[in-house]
Amino acid sequence: MGETGAAVIIGVGPEQGLGAALARRFAAEGLHVYLAGRSEEKLHRVASSIRQTGGSATAVVADATHEAEVEHLFSVVGDTGQGVEIAAYNVDSNIPSLLLETDAETFSLLWRQNCLGAFFFGKAVVRAMQPRSRGTLFFTGATASLRAKPPFTAFATAKAGLRALAQGMAREFSPQGIHVVHAVIDGVINGERARNQFPDYVKAKGEGGLLELEAIAETYWAMHRQHPSAWTHELDLRPYKEPF
Amino acid sequence: MGETGAAVIIGVGPEQGLGAALARRFAAEGLHVYLAGRSEEKLHRVASSIRQTGGSATAVVADATHEAEVEHLFSVVGDTGQGVEIAAYNVDSNIPSLLLETDAETFSLLWRQNCLGAFFFGKAVVRAMQPRSRGTLFFTGATASLRAKPPFTAFATAKAGLRALAQGMAREFSPQGIHVVHAVIDGVINGERARNQFPDYVKAKGEGGLLELEAIAETYWAMHRQHPSAWTHELDLRPYKEPF
Amino acid sequence: MGETGAAVIIGVGPEQGLGAALARRFAAEGLHVYLAGRSEEKLHRVASSIRQTGGSATAVVADATHEAEVEHLFSVVGDTGQGVEIAAYNVDSNIPSLLLETDAETFSLLWRQNCLGAFFFGKAVVRAMQPRSRGTLFFTGATASLRAKPPFTAFATAKAGLRALAQGMAREFSPQGIHVVHAVIDGVINGERARNQFPDYVKAKGEGGLLELEAIAETYWAMHRQHPSAWTHELDLRPYKEPF
Amino acid sequence: MGETGAAVIIGVGPEQGLGAALARRFAAEGLHVYLAGRSEEKLHRVASSIRQTGGSATAVVADATHEAEVEHLFSVVGDTGQGVEIAAYNVDSNIPSLLLETDAETFSLLWRQNCLGAFFFGKAVVRAMQPRSRGTLFFTGATASLRAKPPFTAFATAKAGLRALAQGMAREFSPQGIHVVHAVIDGVINGERARNQFPDYVKAKGEGGLLELEAIAETYWAMHRQHPSAWTHELDLRPYKEPF
Repeated sequence: MGETGAAVIIGVGPEQGLGAALARRFAAEGLHVYLAGRSEEKLHRVASSIRQTGGSATAVVADATHEAEVEHLFSVVGDTGQGVEIAAYNVDSNIPSLLLETDAETFSLLWRQNCLGAFFFGKAVVRAMQPRSRGTLFFTGATASLRAKPPFTAFATAKAGLRALAQGMAREFSPQGIHVVHAVIDGVINGERARNQFPDYVKAKGEGGLLELEAIAETYWAMHRQHPSAWTHELDLRPYKEPF
Repeated sequence: MGETGAAVIIGVGPEQGLGAALARRFAAEGLHVYLAGRSEEKLHRVASSIRQTGGSATAVVADATHEAEVEHLFSVVGDTGQGVEIAAYNVDSNIPSLLLETDAETFSLLWRQNCLGAFFFGKAVVRAMQPRSRGTLFFTGATASLRAKPPFTAFATAKAGLRALAQGMAREFSPQGIHVVHAVIDGVINGERARNQFPDYVKAKGEGGLLELEAIAETYWAMHRQHPSAWTHELDLRPYKEPF
Repeated sequence: MGETGAAVIIGVGPEQGLGAALARRFAAEGLHVYLAGRSEEKLHRVASSIRQTGGSATAVVADATHEAEVEHLFSVVGDTGQGVEIAAYNVDSNIPSLLLETDAETFSLLWRQNCLGAFFFGKAVVRAMQPRSRGTLFFTGATASLRAKPPFTAFATAKAGLRALAQGMAREFSPQGIHVVHAVIDGVINGERARNQFPDYVKAKGEGGLLELEAIAETYWAMHRQHPSAWTHELDLRPYKEPF
Repeated sequence: MGETGAAVIIGVGPEQGLGAALARRFAAEGLHVYLAGRSEEKLHRVASSIRQTGGSATAVVADATHEAEVEHLFSVVGDTGQGVEIAAYNVDSNIPSLLLETDAETFSLLWRQNCLGAFFFGKAVVRAMQPRSRGTLFFTGATASLRAKPPFTAFATAKAGLRALAQGMAREFSPQGIHVVHAVIDGVINGERARNQFPDYVKAKGEGGLLELEAIAETYWAMHRQHPSAWTHELDLRPYKEPF
């Protein structure tokens, strides 16, 4: 609990979700955690569970796809004077759809949520981190970041864009002391979303077949702790049983 | 000149541009060429130069980023009863910009032109080609399709998305007889755009340092001619002197 | 049949194999074809079938894994004074094996045949082509060039090495006018080897599921014909029905 | 210092080298460290420095390119009954050379040291780890693992092979509980080798331009600590100032 400063996570949803797990992990180290997402109720639930375990957290309703809301989020953080040590773009929306059945709205929505919002968030993070020449910025990727397959072509299009954004930002801002990490989550996360949306799949995967929330959060923390002389820009994370 | 059917090219601009060069090449094989783009004047200039050399061409004003205009283009083609043998998405817009200086408009514009329009065009092409279970669909990529570097991060984000779109479509539609090709143009094309926008760079590259329009068009034709038992999905094209 | 000069192909085996198909294709354009491989009998069979269709061919017994034999091959070519227009490294040996069952001999053999021989051949080709600052050098890759999967790990290790060799050579020799092409054959070639070694698989693939020899050869020829202003270094080739 | 079991590192050279740094890091956690390499003197120096700081270490002279020596190394470990928790293949030899100046000996040597030895080592590690269904196996890669450029083509050929070996092994053995990590060291390590071999380069890179030994070792340790539900197979490591 020796760390000071703030962690800002956007895309925080259910308590059993990656956003919440990252928040808990960073709060456990002593960082004040800003939880951002679209559902005030969910944010407050995560925030209070963090406070109950001795952490400190602030919920800020923000839709990543609206630049003004992202900027508002960082103005809230900025007003406290806390330095942003960690920022994580954890918005991840996926709508499986064969190409001819994918309409413009869906295609655009996936891009706005997985990619455009990351651009807004990334810019705000860089502006917050540049004055201190330090901090870690995470982008959460997926299998589809590297490979486009039906019925995930639209999703892959957005995630490939996110990956390029992360890479370009790493090249531009690493020399300024900002560590940009793109984590390729290759598999299904054992969280509320998967258990609700495809319970049979989750069941079939069985023990060891899903990514555990705490395990992912642990690696994010390790990445944040890396010394600038040996920074990782991209890494994959997958269950040991996951074929790839 | 023994080929019959149509070629549809969107992103046709100046006579010394890739869209026009592809059109000339396909027209020279006997295909009726549909030239689509935003400038009626440019389209007509290319169309009449094609007609003067014995080819046949139709100009259709269409902005690739408007789905209705793309669909109109294909309804024009469809009304003639011609089968679409070749379609090429040749829209390519690039605005170099450091990340913090890139605004939402620019970031979105690059995506709409390089990626969203390709989605609209791709869907329309598949619908046109499916009934005949044949045809070649080209997407023109760039160095940035594979690598994001400042000041091209926004452009790379869009081009990486385009690449994923092409890959997903190849996986979905190749088995249906539709050949989807993603051509990575790795270098500067010796066309009007480069000569106007960065004349010094063009000069510095010197002889052999730029991609010639006819050379690219020739390879597109060779890809179209591939037998379905050995289709190429992705290939790079670069001047022999270009470092990579 | 207007071409003059020589094509040198190493890894020529059965008449229904890629080496022979490439030889036939290049001979059909008027090139004198040098057929190299380990089996004199097979080489002579291919050579005489080429001669019967009006082509000209010379068989040279050479094991690609012995540098002296590769050099001898090129000294035979050099003695005729013919310029080497095309050279193809077509040696391809694969021994599926789980890792713990792979012994040092097998691991080394696969590397010598798929990679070391390519190094010997590549050097000899460059020396033959440099004086004329022209020519195309093909390396035949495989799915495993890009992806290592059991039981093909040893094979993939060698093919990934071959790919790196081709890439390094392209970077070093393209500016000297030597076109280096790495063709990723992603699927099974409809040739004698597959039909003998895994007939059931060939049968199951059915019509359209295998790469046809002539189709591959046609694309190699198209690559050779590329103008230096738009050279392809790497492309994939797969049957339209092949999942990837 | 709560860990029990053994770590086996091959490719241990100077005290200010990656092999030694990994050994120190693992010893600091309580693992008994087996140091393997070709120079008995260097091994003993590293071993005694580890012992002086309270760690425990055994030096075993072994040339990774000789399978019998690798097997002997693991028989020494096996005789103690200690479980192998970590194994690291850290042999890394590089000889810059333009292609035509690279002889068969050099090309083969680089392959034997960077790739064949890794195959021997990998097999022995799997055999040691399988009975316990656990352990982490590291392969140390380089920039050239992903990209071949003169004058490093031969080196890249070997390193690309190593990468494929690591990938194939991950696919084969992860489901058995063995964590296979390929670390792409993208930059120059601030160790004795670089300081001796290219002191000017090291100087020019300046502060923050080189990878620090302890920083790399820290990330290796974090990878070893990953929960099996979220394993990393590949990650890059580079100085924050390193262009890529």
